[in-house]
Amino acid sequence: MLLLKRFHSTVQRIAQISSASKPGDTLHVKGWIKNVRRLKNNIFLDISDGSTSEKFQLVVPRNSDTQQLTSGCGVSAVGCVQVAPNGHFELHADEVESLTDGHLRDGYPFSPKQKHAPEYVREHLHLRSRIDYIAAQMRVRHRAQKVIHDYMDEQQFVQINTPLLTTNDCEGAGEVFRVQPESEQLLKQMARQNVPADQSYFDQKVFLSVSGQLHLEAMSYGLGNTYTLAPAFRAENSKSPLHLAEFYMFEAELVHMERLEQLAAFIERMLKEITTRLLNANTADLQFCQQSANASSDLAWLQVPWKTLSYDEALELVVANKQSFKSAVTPDEGFSKEQELFLVAHCGTPVFVIDWPTKQKPFYMRMCRSNPERVHALDLLMPSVGELCGGSLREHDADQLSKHPQLPKSLAWYVELRKYGGLPTGGFGMGFERYLQLITGVKNIRDVIPFPRYPHSCKM
Amino acid sequence: MLLLKRFHSTVQRIAQISSASKPGDTLHVKGWIKNVRRLKNNIFLDISDGSTSEKFQLVVPRNSDTQQLTSGCGVSAVGCVQVAPNGHFELHADEVESLTDGHLRDGYPFSPKQKHAPEYVREHLHLRSRIDYIAAQMRVRHRAQKVIHDYMDEQQFVQINTPLLTTNDCEGAGEVFRVQPESEQLLKQMARQNVPADQSYFDQKVFLSVSGQLHLEAMSYGLGNTYTLAPAFRAENSKSPLHLAEFYMFEAELVHMERLEQLAAFIERMLKEITTRLLNANTADLQFCQQSANASSDLAWLQVPWKTLSYDEALELVVANKQSFKSAVTPDEGFSKEQELFLVAHCGTPVFVIDWPTKQKPFYMRMCRSNPERVHALDLLMPSVGELCGGSLREHDADQLSKHPQLPKSLAWYVELRKYGGLPTGGFGMGFERYLQLITGVKNIRDVIPFPRYPHSCKM
Repeated sequence: MLLLKRFHSTVQRIAQISSASKPGDTLHVKGWIKNVRRLKNNIFLDISDGSTSEKFQLVVPRNSDTQQLTSGCGVSAVGCVQVAPNGHFELHADEVESLTDGHLRDGYPFSPKQKHAPEYVREHLHLRSRIDYIAAQMRVRHRAQKVIHDYMDEQQFVQINTPLLTTNDCEGAGEVFRVQPESEQLLKQMARQNVPADQSYFDQKVFLSVSGQLHLEAMSYGLGNTYTLAPAFRAENSKSPLHLAEFYMFEAELVHMERLEQLAAFIERMLKEITTRLLNANTADLQFCQQSANASSDLAWLQVPWKTLSYDEALELVVANKQSFKSAVTPDEGFSKEQELFLVAHCGTPVFVIDWPTKQKPFYMRMCRSNPERVHALDLLMPSVGELCGGSLREHDADQLSKHPQLPKSLAWYVELRKYGGLPTGGFGMGFERYLQLITGVKNIRDVIPFPRYPHSCKM
Repeated sequence: MLLLKRFHSTVQRIAQISSASKPGDTLHVKGWIKNVRRLKNNIFLDISDGSTSEKFQLVVPRNSDTQQLTSGCGVSAVGCVQVAPNGHFELHADEVESLTDGHLRDGYPFSPKQKHAPEYVREHLHLRSRIDYIAAQMRVRHRAQKVIHDYMDEQQFVQINTPLLTTNDCEGAGEVFRVQPESEQLLKQMARQNVPADQSYFDQKVFLSVSGQLHLEAMSYGLGNTYTLAPAFRAENSKSPLHLAEFYMFEAELVHMERLEQLAAFIERMLKEITTRLLNANTADLQFCQQSANASSDLAWLQVPWKTLSYDEALELVVANKQSFKSAVTPDEGFSKEQELFLVAHCGTPVFVIDWPTKQKPFYMRMCRSNPERVHALDLLMPSVGELCGGSLREHDADQLSKHPQLPKSLAWYVELRKYGGLPTGGFGMGFERYLQLITGVKNIRDVIPFPRYPHSCKM
């Protein structure tokens, strides 16, 4: 009979039980056993189906069948919803079907009752989603992407899949990954005159993208506002808990941006809105992530207007407090993370630092017409993570752009975008993992992405 | 006064005008001039802001200012909504602000009134979004991704960003792209004993992902159903209008999949639902794409139940009709596209071909227990594109999986997923661009992705 029920009843995801059921309802659930407690007449099983951080208890009679159940087993049960003494819903079932043996004694690296260090958990990357706080992180990451897509769609942005293979090494030298076919035979077969042998697939050197910005701009000149939420790659030898070789960037380009304040206002409104939606949708997961990370949730910034400092004002504040920093003040190189956090604390809100020295910023940023030493650029500094977004107005004057000494020769196409119907535009980029670290309090970026890639580590 | 209005009124996107406005309303629009017609007293401008395929007409008085306007100019105008003789809304403005010169006579490769061949348009990739049918494609692509994310979220799947850098070369040899840092200096600096010099960044060879499936499976064992919509890469020397070096795959893994029919039912329901939503949301864009591609929209498959053939039945049909094919019948290698389309035509609906020869399919597919020569695999064949999805039940028996002669040694982790709490699972992958080709009728895959990458071509 149980078998019959299994095929004819819809399986209820645990996350929905409290909202979709009432005491007395008959429900079918499936999941993995996380914990087992055996009392005299009954066995109490904490089960998880991956849908929520909240524990769900299954109560079954103690007998020779249920006695075999251990942590890690997959189970299926049809039973009656009841209210437990702690006020939570639980499921009382007469029988429970074991879908699979847990086998956790046979070399499984995690102990159900022990809290393992993140470094240790990362060593077993393929099994990591079975750890509750990692599963919660993945649900938060899913929801964060969903609310970004929803919001940008409502605001009528077009999502553009910017290419990951590109001939543009963008802003820097030496920090890029090179891509070529693994097969020597293929390279030979595709050989062309005047093309180096290792470049024969694309007829030139090809790299992994470090940013989709320039490609977004090309699309915005036909489509209006565009965005991308896509992987980006940096070949840095960094052990920092804020950097990965493969990470995600949320980037947007907005047309008709004439003043930096318009761009800052968009960023502030967007971040407040998506964060509020995320908090409301995944409250339990976020609390669970914060608890596991021993982080407190300081989201006071959702409620207040954010401040703006010019680079010169910010520098003055940092210089006046230089004795309190471990890091040196370097006016030609911007601020250290410590100094960024000082500026945030000083203002008591997130801070847009605007009007940066031209020398510190890339060629595409729009020069202040009243002061060629400054560009219309902004960095957004947030509590705990420091810089979260960087953005600028773009130089939309083709002649001005052409004259920039750092304009790469290969970017003639980028200048052409402006030549034919150039318009004031602006945009920003946000490290998506850094945003997740901000929201969840997780210290190491390797724990907010499913499969972290960093120096000397590319598991699976 | 115009300037004042510009800063105080909200700019209305053209796509929304017909639903959000009524005759007599005052509106502010911004866009690019697509076409100019000069009559005695008035100038008629077709303008586009990238939000819709439908033309929108701006009517301004003919005078010395407006006389300067040409195709390609950016313009801003505040005016009054009126109904044109053809029944469409148009905007009558007293003046129009020119935001930028069009400069289209100065080397712009496209003529506003001419229809250029897709090959020619692709040569000017950075300007391509200004071509109406490409802009329409990009909006359709955006919407298709949005409806997939919405649907999968409603179905409680967790989106997983599967890694693009991987040590797993998955199903094949020789078809992968290799990744390593461009900087020789960095490689030297990171050198380790017993690691080849060119592998020092990750301590091993790293490739671009060809599929996120195995990584999804690892996540599904903790989270339940998961999916990804992510780039994948193939280093093939193919000039085919169905293949790219960088393309997008929509892949999903479902837990508690015990029968292939369950998986097929999910795919059918999902494809009908997302396609219906896409059609309803972007009707004009889809019609415009089909028109431009000289394709007719045959979406009769939305209304009928789809059929299923076993591989053996399908082969029998193909063999019985072999005289009608240009391609040879090769029972050991599956079907050619021509034969796939024959099967679709024969059935009069999309077809799931199931229960494939074990020899033709990869190691992870579940063997039919009643016939080890067959695996629980499916291909979904659709009109015009042939194979759209491939999927299977996964072999969840760790012992059985371990014995498979094609199991790569490096995938011990994949077997371990099953060892600890293995469950019946199944999943599928769909080429996202092929889906777009199916829906829009566009013949060349290079025209449904913003920046196509293929042999000897990686522009921008």
